[in-house]
Order: sequence, then structure tokens, then C-alpha cells
Amino acid sequence: MPLHPVHAPLARVRLAVDCMGGDHGPAVTLPACRAFLDKHPQAELVLVGTAVALEGAATLARCTQVVATEVVTMDDPVEVALRKKRDSSMRVAIEQLKDGAHACVSAGNTGALMAVARYLLKTLDGVDRPAIASVLPNRNDGYTTVLDLGANVDCAPEHLLQFAVLGSALVSAVDGKPNPSVGLLNIGEEAIKGSEAIKRAGELLRVAGAEGHINFHGNVEGNDIFRGTVDIVVCDGFVGNVMLKTSEGLASMLSDFIKQEFTRTPLTKLAALVALPVLKRFKRRVDPRRYNGAALLGLRGLVFKSHGSADAFAFEQALTRAYDAARNRLLDRVQDRIGDTLQAGAAGPEPLPSGDAASPQAA
Amino acid sequence: MPLHPVHAPLARVRLAVDCMGGDHGPAVTLPACRAFLDKHPQAELVLVGTAVALEGAATLARCTQVVATEVVTMDDPVEVALRKKRDSSMRVAIEQLKDGAHACVSAGNTGALMAVARYLLKTLDGVDRPAIASVLPNRNDGYTTVLDLGANVDCAPEHLLQFAVLGSALVSAVDGKPNPSVGLLNIGEEAIKGSEAIKRAGELLRVAGAEGHINFHGNVEGNDIFRGTVDIVVCDGFVGNVMLKTSEGLASMLSDFIKQEFTRTPLTKLAALVALPVLKRFKRRVDPRRYNGAALLGLRGLVFKSHGSADAFAFEQALTRAYDAARNRLLDRVQDRIGDTLQAGAAGPEPLPSGDAASPQAA
Repeated sequence: MPLHPVHAPLARVRLAVDCMGGDHGPAVTLPACRAFLDKHPQAELVLVGTAVALEGAATLARCTQVVATEVVTMDDPVEVALRKKRDSSMRVAIEQLKDGAHACVSAGNTGALMAVARYLLKTLDGVDRPAIASVLPNRNDGYTTVLDLGANVDCAPEHLLQFAVLGSALVSAVDGKPNPSVGLLNIGEEAIKGSEAIKRAGELLRVAGAEGHINFHGNVEGNDIFRGTVDIVVCDGFVGNVMLKTSEGLASMLSDFIKQEFTRTPLTKLAALVALPVLKRFKRRVDPRRYNGAALLGLRGLVFKSHGSADAFAFEQALTRAYDAARNRLLDRVQDRIGDTLQAGAAGPEPLPSGDAASPQAA
Repeated sequence: MPLHPVHAPLARVRLAVDCMGGDHGPAVTLPACRAFLDKHPQAELVLVGTAVALEGAATLARCTQVVATEVVTMDDPVEVALRKKRDSSMRVAIEQLKDGAHACVSAGNTGALMAVARYLLKTLDGVDRPAIASVLPNRNDGYTTVLDLGANVDCAPEHLLQFAVLGSALVSAVDGKPNPSVGLLNIGEEAIKGSEAIKRAGELLRVAGAEGHINFHGNVEGNDIFRGTVDIVVCDGFVGNVMLKTSEGLASMLSDFIKQEFTRTPLTKLAALVALPVLKRFKRRVDPRRYNGAALLGLRGLVFKSHGSADAFAFEQALTRAYDAARNRLLDRVQDRIGDTLQAGAAGPEPLPSGDAASPQAA
């Protein structure tokens, strides 16, 4: 393992917050900011929103305010966010990264956020395509980081190697694991399994692992995500997006089925009353709000995306993830790892395929 | 919608059963056969297994026995099943399809079963690659049929169209829906989303839908599988396999978490006692055993695959699915639909890509 320079944590962390993003806007983001500031005395926030929205934040300490006149809605097409709404809270929040903020957080729509971030920040040398990374709970009562979750489709093997490097930097910064393990999502553990791109990606990852640039475990399968077999699972954005939405759909169906069964008759309602503390504990354990906050990785700046439907508790988690990443200098760590791996000849950047414009593919 | 000839159900259905397949072999398959025969007076079984194993089935009515001297294990590589064990129960069971059996059921390993079935039966005209189709429970208290679940990776758009046709025939035969709806698994509902292959598949499916060959709904996302948005979801085998294993892993984790929470303390154990009837009802509702029995579609014969770990109840479900399919003449329905759609010029068969040998990719 090459020795990376030790990055002392930042003494003060400044986060730029798009207060208008998400389904609920300032009604959720401002209370979340207040709760977050209470728990993080080393944090400062740059609140970006309309003048009216920011009135509610006048009394917050360690906050500066930046007024934006426009708002990117959850339905706005990428082109509108990119070319028309040039004074949107989303865009102005990202611009704060050039003006002293260490990371930016938005609950705005994913496609727009990725496109604007990519346009304003550009990708890092050695990275062809930024990726979306998020975490899912696993059996070890920890979580598994998965990327890409939908920014890229038709990924080349080199992209999957880049995702492995980006994910390793993220987990080392946010979870304090210096050498997190990486699995390649496949349909079997054997190296001969999978599509042509996946097999070649496996070869690149094995080389990078043998050279000590990443801690490559080998192939993993869908169930390994929840088993916690590895710290990081890399996959094509199409596969990752289907996997994520399938998981959300299944979890939501099962949770509704439990609710339905416990409210079916007066007797089952009584049983629910008795079982309530247990059910609450279970619910808390798999509460998706605890895992809110996806990282847009591979850009020349740290951008975190909250779920659009996040409540204040969930949005606070996204702020915390961004804070941890910035405080532990994720960007420096990413650059170290890219320098080691991607420029060491394991795989150079390849020209972008045509059609791979600024617009990401995620729904 | 072109009018398909009406196929009267078969008066008698003969199923060939690989009694040795799966983790438990005859200890599971024979009791399942007994229970199945009790419920299906129009069924006959051809039991295939070693002489010793079949001794336990001597008293079963409406059964004939065929002795095979070898057994394909769950770990046997495809090559062993295909070239070495030529008198395996799996292979002999499939061979019964040429000798009067209407469908074959095995719990043996998927890769071997697909390879042997493909070698012995060959694919239907108009079908390039056989696919694996299975069902997942959905919110409508019904189920969604998904294919391909891992037989094919790197699917061309034409393959996805073929899967749509095969799936439509299956659901019309087994579920009695004359015109089941088909969704294309994608990362967004809009037609412009997805990989290049998916976008072109969407065009083919839209044409086939407009011509009335299939009932094409449009793109669906991962969560639509459990929402029950469509009857059939088609996808590349890589994506389908990851989706299926992710779902199995998540469901199993959640179920274990519930168990852990209810057994944590004496008090929670008491709560579990009270909640037991509710939990049992919930468990029954999502019991994966009820959905056991995947169809290998696109071959010149009906082969059904039971989960390797199936118990007698689950294996009986696989027998029932095979019985329903054979009784309602799935093979004739498939051929009708292929005749309509694939030979109508919507998309002709394309040459097999190199490397697409008899060995399927599923783990």
C-alpha cells in the first residue's frame, strides 16, 4: 500500500447549503441546519436561498446568508437548471465551493445537481465520469457504500476502476477505515462470470489490488451488499440504480405489509400495541433516513445530495456526512489515490465516448 | 392483437421429475411428488433417479420410474454435467420430453440445467437465447414475472424483445391473462433514459406493442417490480440476476432483524408470543417458497427449475407451475407468439455473438 500523506482534519468546516432544494425546501432544511449546528461547534454554514426563505434563519449563529433569486424544482429538466436558472439556490450553493466553502449539500433533483456541479466544478484529472455513491445498511449493523447509483450507464472497465478509487477515498475519509475493501458487483464469484466489460474491469481491479492501490476483495453478488461482505461495491450506474430502486421498493412493500397485518383486526391491533417497542427498534435499525446523503464523487469539489423527500432528521444526516467528508479532507484523499492508481499506469483516462455529455442519466 | 388459435388444455399432463436435484434430493422431491399427485388427478409423473432413491417411491400411483446412474451435484461445473455425466438424472429427465413428457422439473444447479436443456432440446426458431423467468410477489397480492434472471449477459435489443414475447406466452398460459402487460426495466420512465441497448430495445418493444404483438406498457423502474405496475418485466440477465439476489439478500436480512428484535429480551419474547399469529400471516404472505419454480423459456421443450434449497412445499409449487404451463400448452403459445412477432419483421433473429456458447452465465 503506497503511503498517503497524512491529512490533518480541518479545524473549521464551512458547508454551503441549498436551502430551497427537495420536496419541502426551507421548512426542512432550516430546522436541520439548526440541529446540525448545535451538534457541530466547528461547523459554519453558508445558507443559500431566496430572501423570503432565509428570513427564518436570521437568528442562527455561525451562519452567513447568500440570496439567490431562483429555485430549481424537482421536475425541472437538466437544461433548465443548467442554462436558464443561472441564479438558482442550487447553482449559487455550488459556487460557494470556489469561495471558501468546503462542501455543498442539496436535496434538489439529482440530474440537475450532477449536471450543474459538473459544469461548474469540472471533473478531476484521471476521472472521466463523476459517480454517485451512497450507503445501504448491512447485517453487520454497519453499512455498505455502493457506487455508481445512476450517474453513468454503459460504463467501461476503466470507469469501474475509477469508481473503486473514488469509493475507497470516500470510505477512508468518512468512516476512518484506512484500507476499505472493494467488491465488483457481478452475477457470480468466479472471475469468469459476467459481461465482457465486467470481466475486464475485474482484471483492472485485480492489478490495482496487487499493486496495493485498492483493497480488492473480488467479485460480489447482489446479496453481498446486505451481508456486508465488503466496504464498497462498485457497479455500472444502470445496475446500481436498478438495485437501489428495487431495494427501496421491496423494503417499502414489506413495511406496508407488516403495517397492514398489524391493523387488520382489533386483536392484531392489540398485538401491535404489545409489539410496538420491538417494531420501533426494528424500524429504527433499518431507517433509510439514517443513511441519507449521497456523495457526488470525482469532481473538483465536494457535493452531497440529500434525498428529495428527506425530513429534517434525514437532511441533518446528509449535512453530517458532508461535514465528515470535508473535515477529513476527502478531496485531498481522492487526489492522492488518483495520483497513485490512475496515473501509475494501471489505467489511464480514456476519451469520453460520444454522447457522454454533462447530463447524467439518473432518474 | 392478432388472434391466436385457441389451445384446449391437455386432458392429461405428464411431468418428468429429476428426483436427485437440489440440496436435499429425494428426501424433498418424493414427498413433494406425493403431495402434488394428491391434488392433481390429471397428472402423471415420470420419476427419474438412482435405483436406491426410487425405492422410496414404489407405492406412488400414476408414476413411472426411470433409473439414472449418475447425479449432477450443485457444484458440478457445466462441462461435467454436459460432457461427463451422460446418464445423470437431470439429463435423463430432460430426455423424457422427447418421449411423451410435457414438462420437466429439476432443482439441480442452474448453469448445468440450462446447458443440458439447451444442448438436448435446442432453441426455438426465432429465439437466439433461452431466458430464465420467475415471479416475485407484489403489492397487489399478486406477482410480477421477471426475465431474464441470469442466463444471458450483454443482451442485444432483439433479445429483450424475444424475452417480452416469451414472458407474455408464459403469463398467458400460467396466469390465464390473455394480454399481459410488459415493462422494460430502466432507470427512468422517459424513453430517453438508459443505456444504448435499452433505448433501442424500447423502440423495438414500442413497435411490437403498436402492432399488437405484445401489450407494452413502457419503461419501468426497480420499484415497479414490487408495485405490480406490469405483469412482466424484461431485463438483461446481468441486471435481473443482481436484482433478484439483492432482493433475496434484503428480505433475508430484514427477516433476521425482526427475529433478532423479538428474541432480544424476555419481554420482547413475550411480545413475540402475542404477535405470533400476525407475524405468521406476514411471513406467509411473502414466503418465497410460494413463488418457487422458474421457467427456462425459448427451448423446444418445457423445463422448470426449482430453487436448490427448496423444501417439499416449495418443490411442490414448482411442480404445479410446470403442470399449469404444460396443461395450458405454453409451448404452443410461445410458438404462436413468436410466429406473430418475431417473424413478422419486427426483428429477425441475429447471429449469436462469439462466446455465446451453450454455457449460461448464471451463478
